[in-house]
Amino acid sequence: MPNQRFYTNKGPFPLGKLVELSNSTFCEGVGSQVKNAQIKDVAFISNAELGTVTYCSDPRLLDSLTNTEATACIISQKNLESLPENVIPILNEQPQRAYAKIASTMYPTECNQLLHTGASVDATAKVDSSAIICSGVVVGPGAEIGANVTIGPNSVIGKGVIIGQNTSIDSNVSISHSIIGSSVKILAGARIGQEGFGFIMDDEGYLSIPQLGCVRIADNVEIGANTTIDRGSLSDTTIGTGTRIDNLVQIAHNVQIGKGCVIVAQVGIAGSTVIGDYAALAGQAGIAQHLKIGKGARVAAQGGVIRDVREGETISGTPAIPIMEWRRQHVALSKLSQKRKGDL
Amino acid sequence: MPNQRFYTNKGPFPLGKLVELSNSTFCEGVGSQVKNAQIKDVAFISNAELGTVTYCSDPRLLDSLTNTEATACIISQKNLESLPENVIPILNEQPQRAYAKIASTMYPTECNQLLHTGASVDATAKVDSSAIICSGVVVGPGAEIGANVTIGPNSVIGKGVIIGQNTSIDSNVSISHSIIGSSVKILAGARIGQEGFGFIMDDEGYLSIPQLGCVRIADNVEIGANTTIDRGSLSDTTIGTGTRIDNLVQIAHNVQIGKGCVIVAQVGIAGSTVIGDYAALAGQAGIAQHLKIGKGARVAAQGGVIRDVREGETISGTPAIPIMEWRRQHVALSKLSQKRKGDL
Amino acid sequence: MPNQRFYTNKGPFPLGKLVELSNSTFCEGVGSQVKNAQIKDVAFISNAELGTVTYCSDPRLLDSLTNTEATACIISQKNLESLPENVIPILNEQPQRAYAKIASTMYPTECNQLLHTGASVDATAKVDSSAIICSGVVVGPGAEIGANVTIGPNSVIGKGVIIGQNTSIDSNVSISHSIIGSSVKILAGARIGQEGFGFIMDDEGYLSIPQLGCVRIADNVEIGANTTIDRGSLSDTTIGTGTRIDNLVQIAHNVQIGKGCVIVAQVGIAGSTVIGDYAALAGQAGIAQHLKIGKGARVAAQGGVIRDVREGETISGTPAIPIMEWRRQHVALSKLSQKRKGDL
Repeated sequence: MPNQRFYTNKGPFPLGKLVELSNSTFCEGVGSQVKNAQIKDVAFISNAELGTVTYCSDPRLLDSLTNTEATACIISQKNLESLPENVIPILNEQPQRAYAKIASTMYPTECNQLLHTGASVDATAKVDSSAIICSGVVVGPGAEIGANVTIGPNSVIGKGVIIGQNTSIDSNVSISHSIIGSSVKILAGARIGQEGFGFIMDDEGYLSIPQLGCVRIADNVEIGANTTIDRGSLSDTTIGTGTRIDNLVQIAHNVQIGKGCVIVAQVGIAGSTVIGDYAALAGQAGIAQHLKIGKGARVAAQGGVIRDVREGETISGTPAIPIMEWRRQHVALSKLSQKRKGDL
Repeated sequence: MPNQRFYTNKGPFPLGKLVELSNSTFCEGVGSQVKNAQIKDVAFISNAELGTVTYCSDPRLLDSLTNTEATACIISQKNLESLPENVIPILNEQPQRAYAKIASTMYPTECNQLLHTGASVDATAKVDSSAIICSGVVVGPGAEIGANVTIGPNSVIGKGVIIGQNTSIDSNVSISHSIIGSSVKILAGARIGQEGFGFIMDDEGYLSIPQLGCVRIADNVEIGANTTIDRGSLSDTTIGTGTRIDNLVQIAHNVQIGKGCVIVAQVGIAGSTVIGDYAALAGQAGIAQHLKIGKGARVAAQGGVIRDVREGETISGTPAIPIMEWRRQHVALSKLSQKRKGDL
Repeated sequence: MPNQRFYTNKGPFPLGKLVELSNSTFCEGVGSQVKNAQIKDVAFISNAELGTVTYCSDPRLLDSLTNTEATACIISQKNLESLPENVIPILNEQPQRAYAKIASTMYPTECNQLLHTGASVDATAKVDSSAIICSGVVVGPGAEIGANVTIGPNSVIGKGVIIGQNTSIDSNVSISHSIIGSSVKILAGARIGQEGFGFIMDDEGYLSIPQLGCVRIADNVEIGANTTIDRGSLSDTTIGTGTRIDNLVQIAHNVQIGKGCVIVAQVGIAGSTVIGDYAALAGQAGIAQHLKIGKGARVAAQGGVIRDVREGETISGTPAIPIMEWRRQHVALSKLSQKRKGDL
């Protein structure tokens, strides 16, 4: 169960309320005694105590239900018979989704409770009175900070930056030259809006191209720790609504990322590439510059993409090719190597 | 056009002045009316308005010139005929270079305009009176900060560090045990001079080897956001003049990087490797320890280098091999796989 | 020799004392004059001056001993004859280990000597009186900071975090939801305890799963610059005793890492994977989620692991396979490619 050092438990809640807010149902004929049972916490099947609710969405865990001490368990109809009689079933065809709703009721997102003294806010910045600006934060001239925004300790918000309402920014973040939407979440150490890696290389030597664009991040985007997003050179670097970006990702200047994309840790996307809606890039994948990745395309972990990718295509390898062909090549190479070994 | 929230436009400028400072020329017989035309901004071909100057260096964009509303366009002699009559030609055989010069005149690099109150500067540090030390900066004992240096908010400059004139350091940077040249640019979140990953592993367990060297960064070097450069163990980690390093790059202890190298995002260079002048390492490449990479060598994206690389050689793959051989191997494997598929 | 700008030399020491504390020996019959020789510094063979001690553990450097000006040299018995007569031999079968002990005596780890004014420590935090809390540090409510801890400038310690004695935390670090052991070393810009990348993706859209676990770091662990370690979702992310993690490493939620592991720069480990004791992951390797990596297993640089790895196994490639098979496959492919080339 969550460590109370770090998390504030808002429980207990009557079981009936948790069932309702998670769009779940009881089995038929359940009485008010069950509905009023007090639930104090969420827990895993294996370490649940009396008074907690757990969930089971993984068939491999059905056996472990036998020994759980949870008071109630979220489970789908088809797995109901695996639940021991002493555990109250909460019926939901998406147990993990129901769990997420109950867990976020039990432990609502907390405002950053660190001290907020000693921030340096420029006199020309507009900061909504409901915003929380923690210690050591620096806010530049003309910046606009919306309602209910939290800015964690020692983060730096540059000149003119706009941050939409309900957005939360963790500690030690740097943001410049950016327009950030509402309900965006930015984790510690992210760098957004710095100069891109753009310069002319010719016989006269290197010459920096002024990077005069900005970064535009739509609503509900999440950005991981120590991730870097460079601003555009003259057009903008853009991230679409609801896209989720993990830690240590590199997004170069002028990249355009669509809605609902999933970009896993340590991915790198080179300059001016366009990523379609709902594309998924697995960990450590790299995408070369000036490419178009189609809507819903998927790149396997460590894939190296050097050509456009069609809508819905799944590719793997370096250079990345259709994943079935990639697998065939690995089988072919394995057979060839074994044959040679036999020949020796 | 650049967003005036973030960038301060120094225009308008008379077109003749922009032509001159970019080493461009007008077509013959152009009159003083054209030379005195007021140019207020730079823009892309596609979104240029009246009063702006654009450029065209990419043959694929020649067609789009037809509809541009730009007042003037930087273009090479050979593409001149693609320019509509209503756009004033600015002749230059390197249009992008000319554009960069005009854009940096229109938008000169701005000092960091964030508040600079509340920095903690040790009494024994020497800070030039022209240096800008932003809020939350910490400068350690004996550090020396040169003329016109900018140190962004919440950056930390350790004991004894020397920073040459005109160098600019972004926010949330950490520098220790380092001697930094002039006109260096260091982006947000970079870590320079921390302890390297050096320890003895034998039957008695791990024992750290004291890391007693430093980092030396020559003039005009640029270092990307969240990049890490470890100090040497007893000799120094060195970066040569004019080398450009992108975001999230790892440079281990005792690495020596030559002049004018280009190191793209997420590259990793292991300990004591020596990189020759003008070498180029593409994104996510990895170089093993104690290697020599020759002058002008190139490593393709995601390449994994485990042997020395000759001067001027271009290599790719893991383990990295000459790029032509790497391509041949991919073709051979593809054919083999298709043959097997046909055989099944 | 170490630059005195950055390092404080505690010498000179009599040679006899250095021999003793490094568990070394003199050659037979050495007199008190030698034992009392004053040693002022450590140095490399090539740049050693009179009054310094150097070491030689690499057979390739034996020739260079001829010209060294060092007063003494740590060397193994079998290489003794390579040492010129004017250099005093210090006998040790592990010269580098002996050097490390002498160097750390000459240059003991220094407390961070930056200013410590202006930290923001919550009134409910417990900070041991011997702890050094530097400028700009923020410590949240209920946090506990042990004896002799150093927290570098502008680092942020969240609510409830526990930091064990003798642990040292560099500048600009963020730690939340974490319990950190004793004698841990955390380099600049590391992010520990932030939310993991966990959400439900189904037809109803993305829904974040509350991340309610923490990070537990055992004693003597070292964590590199800008590395990210996410907290668990409901169980914890754990790092075992003495494990060493390099820069820019990503460790996802619920990962369990054993004792004495070595994790080189830019490695990524996906969610819920378990890494056995003394495993070694070389640079840029990636490990997929929900895997078990056996005790003492080794993954080569850039390896992409998508299956469980047996105890002691060494694997390479993407997807990673036993390293001998991986080498055979590269040879087979090379031969195939050359055959095809010959056929053309």
